[in-house]
Parts: sequence; structure tokens; C-alpha cells
Amino acid sequence: MLRVTVWNENRHEQKNPVVKEIYPQGIHGTIAAFLEEEGFPTRTATLDQEEHGLTEEVLQETDVLVWWGHLAHDEVKDEIVEKVKERVLDGMGLIVLHSGHFSKIFKTLMGTSCDLKWREEDDKERLWVVEPSHPIAEGIGEFIELEREEMYGEHFDIPAPDELIFTSWFEGGEVFRSGCTYKRGNGKVFYFRPGHETYPTYYNKEIQRVIKNAVGWAKPVDRKRPVYGNAKPLERIAIKK
Amino acid sequence: MLRVTVWNENRHEQKNPVVKEIYPQGIHGTIAAFLEEEGFPTRTATLDQEEHGLTEEVLQETDVLVWWGHLAHDEVKDEIVEKVKERVLDGMGLIVLHSGHFSKIFKTLMGTSCDLKWREEDDKERLWVVEPSHPIAEGIGEFIELEREEMYGEHFDIPAPDELIFTSWFEGGEVFRSGCTYKRGNGKVFYFRPGHETYPTYYNKEIQRVIKNAVGWAKPVDRKRPVYGNAKPLERIAIKK
Amino acid sequence: MLRVTVWNENRHEQKNPVVKEIYPQGIHGTIAAFLEEEGFPTRTATLDQEEHGLTEEVLQETDVLVWWGHLAHDEVKDEIVEKVKERVLDGMGLIVLHSGHFSKIFKTLMGTSCDLKWREEDDKERLWVVEPSHPIAEGIGEFIELEREEMYGEHFDIPAPDELIFTSWFEGGEVFRSGCTYKRGNGKVFYFRPGHETYPTYYNKEIQRVIKNAVGWAKPVDRKRPVYGNAKPLERIAIKK
Amino acid sequence: MLRVTVWNENRHEQKNPVVKEIYPQGIHGTIAAFLEEEGFPTRTATLDQEEHGLTEEVLQETDVLVWWGHLAHDEVKDEIVEKVKERVLDGMGLIVLHSGHFSKIFKTLMGTSCDLKWREEDDKERLWVVEPSHPIAEGIGEFIELEREEMYGEHFDIPAPDELIFTSWFEGGEVFRSGCTYKRGNGKVFYFRPGHETYPTYYNKEIQRVIKNAVGWAKPVDRKRPVYGNAKPLERIAIKK
Repeated sequence: MLRVTVWNENRHEQKNPVVKEIYPQGIHGTIAAFLEEEGFPTRTATLDQEEHGLTEEVLQETDVLVWWGHLAHDEVKDEIVEKVKERVLDGMGLIVLHSGHFSKIFKTLMGTSCDLKWREEDDKERLWVVEPSHPIAEGIGEFIELEREEMYGEHFDIPAPDELIFTSWFEGGEVFRSGCTYKRGNGKVFYFRPGHETYPTYYNKEIQRVIKNAVGWAKPVDRKRPVYGNAKPLERIAIKK
Repeated sequence: MLRVTVWNENRHEQKNPVVKEIYPQGIHGTIAAFLEEEGFPTRTATLDQEEHGLTEEVLQETDVLVWWGHLAHDEVKDEIVEKVKERVLDGMGLIVLHSGHFSKIFKTLMGTSCDLKWREEDDKERLWVVEPSHPIAEGIGEFIELEREEMYGEHFDIPAPDELIFTSWFEGGEVFRSGCTYKRGNGKVFYFRPGHETYPTYYNKEIQRVIKNAVGWAKPVDRKRPVYGNAKPLERIAIKK
Repeated sequence: MLRVTVWNENRHEQKNPVVKEIYPQGIHGTIAAFLEEEGFPTRTATLDQEEHGLTEEVLQETDVLVWWGHLAHDEVKDEIVEKVKERVLDGMGLIVLHSGHFSKIFKTLMGTSCDLKWREEDDKERLWVVEPSHPIAEGIGEFIELEREEMYGEHFDIPAPDELIFTSWFEGGEVFRSGCTYKRGNGKVFYFRPGHETYPTYYNKEIQRVIKNAVGWAKPVDRKRPVYGNAKPLERIAIKK
Repeated sequence: MLRVTVWNENRHEQKNPVVKEIYPQGIHGTIAAFLEEEGFPTRTATLDQEEHGLTEEVLQETDVLVWWGHLAHDEVKDEIVEKVKERVLDGMGLIVLHSGHFSKIFKTLMGTSCDLKWREEDDKERLWVVEPSHPIAEGIGEFIELEREEMYGEHFDIPAPDELIFTSWFEGGEVFRSGCTYKRGNGKVFYFRPGHETYPTYYNKEIQRVIKNAVGWAKPVDRKRPVYGNAKPLERIAIKK
């Protein structure tokens, strides 16, 4: 059974009554609830907990980590980021949501600025499925429509995704690569765009479906890290003069 | 005309008489010479120069940077690495050679450990062309054969390359993804495996051909960085109630 | 110097006065004119010529073939399609425009249905650059805007492109992967969406820029087909008992 | 529960006593047996059956089709190939083994010649895992070693795989992209190199493991084909003058 940890910086919920009203248990609470419902044993962790709630023990017991952050990316300690990165390379799945595009963990795994265009003006968003064979899009029709969302627009400064699953249309005239997979070491990474804190996006059943699917897809393989370093030959090497 | 800078840590050449004998002008000197011959205005820069020879001015005047390092990756200052990375994202081409797989600049652009297997036992290496349509392989037959080289073996912990151009066969029983392209921001990156310091690999005409081709391929496009950040709508957004 | 052949079925121009007025020399004539202007020796070929204008000789003298077809894909003879395919695998570049998505040559090189959604209702189209480092997008700003075009919408049933360069936004609510590269054998293929026959799209300077860039990118490498078939060993194989 | 059909041309088994001795139930019988053992309801189909055993009914009841052919690719009827292709685009998984690289179904889905180098001289083969995060490689160590196999060498004329999972080393000096995934329409395709008829390769437990994993990976998503053709706008389109 896949064990999930949902990490949230949990700051908007404390400061902004609009967010508090939409997500009274925090964004992490809402996401954890629908993942639990799906049968994934799920815990949560937040920025202000000790070690941001991501102790060695928690990480070792996490198969897939879901990440939401925005205001306080800089407050996430570099040594925790390094530990999370090592766990991803060891095989832990990582699902980065929305403004997590600017998190330290996503930027360090991508190697680019991860910058983009944005606008908070109640754009309609329509996420089109461009890779219909992918398990992350299972159960989703041709598109998901969100009546209002923050706009994220191209250019999105990421490496070309290994797989591009969703592409968004925005009312204000932009497009965006909204669902992107990457492999890093033994681990899998999925970036999924929607989820601005002032909209009830994580209550949308199709958005929930995608996140549940992504947890299943990001499941670690049962495998040790490859052996690196000095290696004895497997075949005889001719002596050269 | 493409302006090239060849960077070399230039330490083996000072310490090891074998290397000194093979590369009396340093590895950078040998590489710069054949690039100049090809018509690229080329300068060199080394670790022990001020700012490692990579001042803001040098970087601004560099269209393609070639990188060779091994012993002293840790001595490369983080602020210089950051500047090189920004120049790559701005459009400068970057060609990382051999043991540069463990350089800070390559690791930060890849987001993985970039680790691999290795062995110094005079393996024969044969680099097979697996992407014959690619300009980097132009003028190369079905493979390049090197009588003796250091072995680098899989697993090579890199993101799946955007394009895989060469795959190496080694006498001792291993394979390796030896020629890999990546795009990062406005810039292009090529990793090319061969070139252990104790072998005269950079005098090999086919290896030279690949590096010359790669310089041409990595040419910056004439373009500003995209505009990021808050963006006005291009279309009218309906007022929602 | 790259030699280009622009192929057009040239039927709308004969039947539809609107198209005739926009493209009095045919779509092929307009495209050939701006490619000639760029310095590429360019000829044209059309469906109703003998062998569709694509004789063995013409194909051998063509470095990059541009393809526009719509009404009469089925009239293109299978043996000519086979010859064009062989030339692509030999190294000839192929640029498939707009409704050419349904041409026999494109479908056979892709292996999928190449189907899509479409609508002729004067949609505004905005082609966003999603791969700014690519030479095909050189000289193009963040997007190209076309006041009116036919809409092509996802899902576009193609293999995931090797490189995705443009993504279109349409006024009516759709998105589309509008600029896609593929490699096939020794050859390169670029699909570019715009160019419905009832709009003056091929007079647009930015659209012309992209097609000119694509011709440069699709340039054949100087290389024979790899050797296939039975192969002698390059190393001694141990006798097994 | 995934329903598998193993298709085999079943000709070597009739003609060659060596093959008959290794695979007394046919290659299809051996493969079907270990898939059944894994819990997949599996049937077989062969060339000489009516409609090659691939009736509409069989195809509709097949979730993943495994394909082995060699001598008689040309005898497979085009209309059956077309039906299999449609089922793949509809979502059926397809696993193509060894000499199936030259089957009509694989060539038509790839769009290239699918040619390669080959040799029957008891080469040792070592398949290295180059994508350790992939479920198809789960349970496999760093490589699979086969004491004797037919050699397949680069250049392998395929489109760049969506994912490259295995790369083979051969004793005679060649390399090969041995485990390649592709998506086509709603369906997934996996090509896996080993399995020459005169060697007992399909009794190897690791080879079996890879094929079982591949069946799981190629599982169809629960989804209809996207809607193609003329499409009404989802948003109001401004009337242009």
C-alpha cells in the first residue's frame, strides 16, 4: 500500500480569511482527505513543524510526497531540500502542485529557473489531455474546465518534460504545459498546475482524480540505487603495448 | 562568427608528467587549437585565473563554452557557477567533456547526481552513432573507435537526454550514453564522454569533428529571455459573479 | 546551398475564387517566392504534374521538401509516397504544413491517425513559443498572432514530438501542438500548423520566418544510410561449448 | 484482470528440430505459460489459424497483445495488421519481441524501416538498465546477462523511443537499444530485443520478469478515443469584419 505525505507551507491559511474559509483544514488537509478516501495511508507535514515535518523517519516512510508551497519557499531549509532530493533519487515519487513550481526542491531537480507568467484575474482555465494513453489522465474526458483560476502562461522555463499530459488554455489568451512528468534517478516527478489558494480547486473531482492517478503512477519501484564508482571489468581486457 | 571559450581546470597538466607530455599546452590548449583552425575565434580560461578566467566580460563575449574539469570541481566558486548557469539560460551553448559530468555546472543544470561507473584499465571504446540525422554526428561513420580510454559505465544518473546521439561499447562489458543533448532555457547543452587526461583522445580527428560540430549546434539563438512575472491579459476576461 | 521543392496539390486555387485571389500563383508559388528571396534555390511541384512533379530526379535534387495538401490526399500515388519516404529516411528534410497532417506521407511517417478537431469560423490563433532555444523559433517573439485562421484542436493524434516548439491558443477555447519536430532515419521532419487556404497566412512575415528557419534546420547531414543486415563481429567471440 | 494474447507465427517450431526441442509447445506456448502463472488470463494465436487467430472478437477481448514473428512477416494479411493497429490506437497494449522488429504491425506504427545489424554467432549479450525508475525494469538488477543470443546492432532505424529502458552490450563489439517504449493514440507499445528461436531465452527468469512487467505497464487506460472532426466553439468567437 502506497504511503503518502502531503506537505504544505500552510501560511496563506493562517493569514488570509478567504483561504481559511475555503480550506479550513489547510490545503494539506483537503488533499490528504481525498487521498485517504482513495485508500492511500496519508499523513501531512507543514513548514512550521520541526524539520518542516520531514524528518528522516517520515521521509523513509513516504512513498509519494505531494508538495504545495508559495509564500515561503525561502524558509525551507537547504538541508531538508537535500534530503528530499536524495529520497527522490532513491525512488520516492514527488508531485509538485501549482506555485510549487518555484519551490527549492522543484528548481533543484529541474536545473532551470522554473519561471512563468501569472495573473490573478479569474481566468477560465481548460486543461486539455494531450497524452490520452497515460494513466495519470485515466478517467478524465477530453479536458477539465475550471471556472476560475490563477493564470500561468508560457514560456514556462522547465526542461522539456519526459511526457506532456495536459496543456492549459486560458481565457486571457495564454497556454501552459500543465501536466508534466520527469524521471530523476530511481524516482518519478509530476508537476500539476492548478490549485491557487483562493479558489476551491482541490475540491474539484477531476482535479482530485488526476492527483490520485499521479500518486499511483509515481509509485516507487522496488530497487536499490545502482552501484556507482570504480568497477571491475566483466570481460577480460586485452593488454595493450 | 561563433566565439568559443575553452575552460580547463588545468591541474593534471601541472602534476602528472604523463599528462604534461600528452598535452604540453594543456587540454584547453589542444582543444582551442583545433577550434581556431576550424575558424572559431577561441580563447581559454583556467581554474587558477582570477574568477577562474570567467569574468562577466568573458562570459558575455562567449557564445559557446567548453568545459573540462576533474580533480578540483569543488574549487570552482559557487558564484561563478551561478553566472555560467545564467548565461546558459540566456542562450550560451555549453559543451561538457568527460569528467565534467561531475562539475558543479553540469550537476546543477541536470538536477541529478550525474554519477556513473568508471575504470582506468585501457578499455577499448567504440562510440556508436544512434541518431544519424543529427548535425553533431555529421562526418562520422557508423562508430568512432578509441584504442584505449577510461571506461564510464551505466547507470549514468542523468535525466533522459533530449537527444541521444552516441552510445559507447566498452571492452570490459559496459555500455554508456556518450553523447547527450539537453535544452535549458534559451541555451543548449551537449555532454560528450571521451577525453581521459592520460590518453591522447583530443588529438583524434573524429573526436575533434564531434566537438566542432557540437560548437556549431550549440550556437545561441538571437533572442531575449522570455518575459516572466505578472502579465496583463491579451483577451478580455469575463467578469464572474 | 539548400535546394528546396515546394509541393502543393493546387486544387483549391483552381476551384475557389477566394483562394485564387489570395494566392494567384498558388500556395506553392507564394511559399517558393519567399524561400527564393531567402536565397534557397526553390522549385515547385504539383499533384497534376506527371509523377506529381516528384520524379526520381527531382527528389534526388531536393534537400528539403515542403508539403501542402488537403482535398486530394488520396490521389497521391502510393509509389510516389514510398519514394518520398525513402528520401526522408535517406536524409531529405520534410516540412509538412497545415492540412498536410492528413497526407499519406505524414501519416506513414508518424504511424498514427494524425486526426484532430477543426473549425472554420475565423478563430484568432496565437502560437506561443515553448522551446525558445530552438533555431526554428529564432527571430520570433513570445508568440505569433494570426487574426483569423482555421482552428485545429487537441487531441492531435501524433506520436509525442521529439521537440515541441509552438503551442497554439484558439479563441474558441482549444489548444494545439502547432510546431513539432521528428527525426526519421537520416532525415528530419517538421510539422507546422498554420495556413488554411482561405486566409493570407503565408504572407505573414513571422510565419515565413518560421518556414525559412525550418528549411535551415531540416538540412540533410552529409551521411550515407547506416549499413544494415548481417554483420561480421568487430571483436573475437569466445567459442561456447 | 488483464487479458493477454500471445501471437506467434509458429513456423520455426514446425521446420527446425532445434527450435522444436527448445519450445515443444511453441514460443507462444512458453510465453503464455509464464504469463498465466503470473495471473494474467492468456490465450495464444498463430499465423496459420483463420484470420491468424486474431478475429475481431479475440482483439476486442485482448488488453495486451504479445507479438513474435520472423520468417513469414509478409504472410500476415494487411487487413489484420490494420485491425491490430486500430486496436492499439484504441488502447490495447502491444509488446513486440525480437525479430518482430520487422513485422508489418511494428513497422507501420513506427514509420521507419526498423532495420538493424544482426549476427548468429553465439554472442554473449548484457542488457543494461538505463532507466531504473521504470516499472518495466522492476526486479531486475543492473543488467541481465544472456550467455548466447543472436546479435542485433545499431543503427536500429526506429524513431527515438519515448523511453529507453535497456541498452545491450554484445561480445562482438556492438550496442543496441533493447527496451524501448512508445505511445500511439490511446495505446502503449514496448519493443524488447531478446528471444532468438534457437536459444532458450524465454525460459530465463529475468527475461520473463521484463515481459510480465511490460504487460502490466501496457495495460489500457479506461478511455474512449478522443472526438475528432468538426468541433463547435467552446467560447464565443468575435465577428470579424
